[in-house]
Amino acid sequence: MRVMGFDPGLTRCGMALVETGKGRHVVALDVDVVRTPSDERLEHRLKSIFEAACEWMDVHQPDILAIERVFAQNQRSTAMGTAQAAGVVALAASYRSIPVDFRTPSEVKAAITGNGRADKKQVTTMVTRILGLQKPPQPADAADALALAVCHAWRAPAESLTSAHSEAGQGPLSGYEAKVAAALSQRAAAGESAVRQRPSNKIR
Amino acid sequence: MRVMGFDPGLTRCGMALVETGKGRHVVALDVDVVRTPSDERLEHRLKSIFEAACEWMDVHQPDILAIERVFAQNQRSTAMGTAQAAGVVALAASYRSIPVDFRTPSEVKAAITGNGRADKKQVTTMVTRILGLQKPPQPADAADALALAVCHAWRAPAESLTSAHSEAGQGPLSGYEAKVAAALSQRAAAGESAVRQRPSNKIR
Repeated sequence: MRVMGFDPGLTRCGMALVETGKGRHVVALDVDVVRTPSDERLEHRLKSIFEAACEWMDVHQPDILAIERVFAQNQRSTAMGTAQAAGVVALAASYRSIPVDFRTPSEVKAAITGNGRADKKQVTTMVTRILGLQKPPQPADAADALALAVCHAWRAPAESLTSAHSEAGQGPLSGYEAKVAAALSQRAAAGESAVRQRPSNKIR
Repeated sequence: MRVMGFDPGLTRCGMALVETGKGRHVVALDVDVVRTPSDERLEHRLKSIFEAACEWMDVHQPDILAIERVFAQNQRSTAMGTAQAAGVVALAASYRSIPVDFRTPSEVKAAITGNGRADKKQVTTMVTRILGLQKPPQPADAADALALAVCHAWRAPAESLTSAHSEAGQGPLSGYEAKVAAALSQRAAAGESAVRQRPSNKIR
């Protein structure tokens, strides 16, 4: 599965692509930061971001797009521009039938570092280690986009399993297996270290 | 000048088109409300809104698009979706080289009713009267979009005049005329009744 991570922003957007492997193995395929000048009109900045996202999706053909969820109460002055950037990128995905999922910053930090309140440096350090990069990704938006993609790659399989099971009443697994998957998902949602999580592709 | 007003939202978007005439005369050409089902995926809802806006712009060829500015601190739960809807519509305008301006709700209310804190009913009543409509536009999103377009039609000419003057040092008007325009603009910004404002197209 190819997961595209998108850290939205008007001034800087982080875009990353990772491919899932066996178990928790993930490989970084590409990472980039798109910048738009602050003195440009908003609609042109959104167009630049939209076109960069379209190009990325056409080149990399991700199976899913994970976008960082913005909260209105944080960074009020930039939250609206950030949400607009997220909106145009979700639109680009919609035109390519790529499903979009939103992940909260604390969810990503918890999955990557085991601490939902980790700082940017800790996230960068862990992303560098998990992906076996030769040097830390710069700027922080690039690391955030990679972290988002890794978080989604790790968590999505277990989530889709539990939601399929609970929706259908009869999932592909039943009894003990399903309980384990549900427990893992709950534990992960509680922000506990993802490192102790069972390789989720095994039960996918 | 044809002004398109857009009241963003995920569940309901108001779209309106007015044409400016002589003095403060404005004519409503069209108004519509686009709805998207709340159980649909976000990216598909944004696509529906984007396509409705594209169609509107292609049919009506507005000279400018006025969008209601969303504030993060108001209606936290819906602010992000509203900003995303505004973002994709600004994107649609960008692809048609239609400039986008944002107007705050209180700015619109002040221009239309003379009171920046007017309620929805007052706005609807004044919009109906100003545009000489046979019945009040329904739902409120339609009235809001019309109010937005009227506000922009009234205020943009004086604003462009004063900004051109202050930027260039030498605008098309100087001395007394420019002072009048600046005073009118300030008065309007202070939320005073727009009814007492001098017909702005005269000095355009």
